[in-house]
Amino acid sequence: MPEELLSQLGESGAIRMIAQAFPCLAGFVKKGIGDDCAVLEFKGCDPLLITTDMLVEGVHFKEQTLSYEDLGWKALAVSVSDIAAMGGRPATALLSIGLRPSTPVSAFESFIHGFRAMAIESGVALVGGDTVSVGKDLVVSVTLLGTCRRGDVVLRSGARAGDDIWVTGALGDSAAGLEVLLLGGGDINSYSRLVARHQRPFPRFGIGNRLAERRIASAMIDISDGISKDLLLLCEASGVGGVVEEKAVPFSEQLLVFARRHSRNPLDFALHGGEDYELAFTASPQYREEIKQIALEASDGTPARIGSIIEEPGLWLERGGVKARMSAQGYFHFNKAR
Amino acid sequence: MPEELLSQLGESGAIRMIAQAFPCLAGFVKKGIGDDCAVLEFKGCDPLLITTDMLVEGVHFKEQTLSYEDLGWKALAVSVSDIAAMGGRPATALLSIGLRPSTPVSAFESFIHGFRAMAIESGVALVGGDTVSVGKDLVVSVTLLGTCRRGDVVLRSGARAGDDIWVTGALGDSAAGLEVLLLGGGDINSYSRLVARHQRPFPRFGIGNRLAERRIASAMIDISDGISKDLLLLCEASGVGGVVEEKAVPFSEQLLVFARRHSRNPLDFALHGGEDYELAFTASPQYREEIKQIALEASDGTPARIGSIIEEPGLWLERGGVKARMSAQGYFHFNKAR
Repeated sequence: MPEELLSQLGESGAIRMIAQAFPCLAGFVKKGIGDDCAVLEFKGCDPLLITTDMLVEGVHFKEQTLSYEDLGWKALAVSVSDIAAMGGRPATALLSIGLRPSTPVSAFESFIHGFRAMAIESGVALVGGDTVSVGKDLVVSVTLLGTCRRGDVVLRSGARAGDDIWVTGALGDSAAGLEVLLLGGGDINSYSRLVARHQRPFPRFGIGNRLAERRIASAMIDISDGISKDLLLLCEASGVGGVVEEKAVPFSEQLLVFARRHSRNPLDFALHGGEDYELAFTASPQYREEIKQIALEASDGTPARIGSIIEEPGLWLERGGVKARMSAQGYFHFNKAR
Repeated sequence: MPEELLSQLGESGAIRMIAQAFPCLAGFVKKGIGDDCAVLEFKGCDPLLITTDMLVEGVHFKEQTLSYEDLGWKALAVSVSDIAAMGGRPATALLSIGLRPSTPVSAFESFIHGFRAMAIESGVALVGGDTVSVGKDLVVSVTLLGTCRRGDVVLRSGARAGDDIWVTGALGDSAAGLEVLLLGGGDINSYSRLVARHQRPFPRFGIGNRLAERRIASAMIDISDGISKDLLLLCEASGVGGVVEEKAVPFSEQLLVFARRHSRNPLDFALHGGEDYELAFTASPQYREEIKQIALEASDGTPARIGSIIEEPGLWLERGGVKARMSAQGYFHFNKAR
């Protein structure tokens, strides 16, 4: 019998193996593996949120699509987005970076510059890390701690049938921006919004934190791998299903233009394209007006209501009154769709 | 003018660039970049210690020298050692791992098994992480949080002239064990202690925590890169110098045998070989008896007094009454001795 490989087990199988090997028994762990962040409550303290992300050259980015400065920004932004998805405030980061000895110091400086720009935007203090050499592929690992008031933490698991499903902004731009970059040429200037959304995502910690503090969001997740994967994770954690209305999915003007010119369906970018780093959240319909008000105050998102939570498990796309099952086609490590 | 490269800047230059770009102004940061861990004090809470380490295949380890199971153990052990060096108790970890899709699931299982064994030894709960694919070199990044009572944290910077210098056990075994593994053949069985100390270092969190709680250690650091580098870092942070007495440096029997058979000086392994993960600490001479008592209770170290702190900066080796400057020859990323 041939040996099973990680490519057959898949990313979710690998995570399941880790979760099973480490049942979390410590009293201070309020939420372990299985959400955007872990939630820790040490005695007498407000909850701490902690998350970590690893970016690997050739897998998460290429020189062609992301400068050192963009990489610095993005390496922190993706973790800030995880803190945002729990309703927390980003606080302090550790940065580990593996670089080739042949890297120009100026490139390293650009990386620091980009990281620092995101740290200033999000109020993050860098307090440590590790600087090592690599033989080939550049690798960055960021750990971020955030804070949240007791009772305000928003998990993936709180969605209830009847809740609205919201996203904090237009979807699909980042995936389209990546295509623009890979195509190269003059189009990069024509689609500057798409490219910027891929290279410099802006995590929605302002609106995320307000939704948590006012106890409006019943569940929340950030859209890192595509909504067809991430919203399904939220639904599964909550033991519910979701219906997304096709006509309600928000697109940017540039995405519509790019899709039309390249004979593509903008919906494919929006549903399955990753790295938008918008938030998807659920809330009772009574909060519709308040959510719009919060968005004006936070000014880091333009929420759109894209569907509803239902009791029946699974994720569905509704078009002209017809529901079709939405298959998860977001990004999966080791292989596709596992 | 040719562009400066990281290999010219060196590891310490790179760390200095990061530290300068991120002056730490946040009130809850009691110690930022520049010690074994960062120290955070959120309001009303005891200090939290946080550290992160990245291990890269081909740089930190090879398949030939470290099995997947050993790698799992060691990836956590090196961070536990950093918590130990501040006098803290390890509490909770995040694990990010980049694996090739062609990795057998059984190898991944072995990795988890080794990580879990160290987690159980050190009382660590795994609460999250990131699982990604890599194109070539395996990479592991662990972040570890530890706790410490207020006032007990031991920094690198507290050593005073007149203090004794101690190490918690024999030095040089890990570096010699690595050589045994690289030489291969039947010697691996003859030098099982050296090999085990390389593959399965046991961090000294028991004795480290006791030295902190009883306020005995004035400064402490873990020996990850060789004592000629690490003890110098402690001295520099404290604004003092150190004299190591050659005859007081503790060796294991196996190291002496290995060195004699291969016509090597055991001192080279002990002073410049990395990855012993013993603790080096300083303490007033009044504590000599108490330190031996603590070691019996903690049972994870056999402390040896190897020298004294002096006012004059620098690190010196004393042999028959003659002092010679000890040059830092531990491991340096990007290049040697920078």
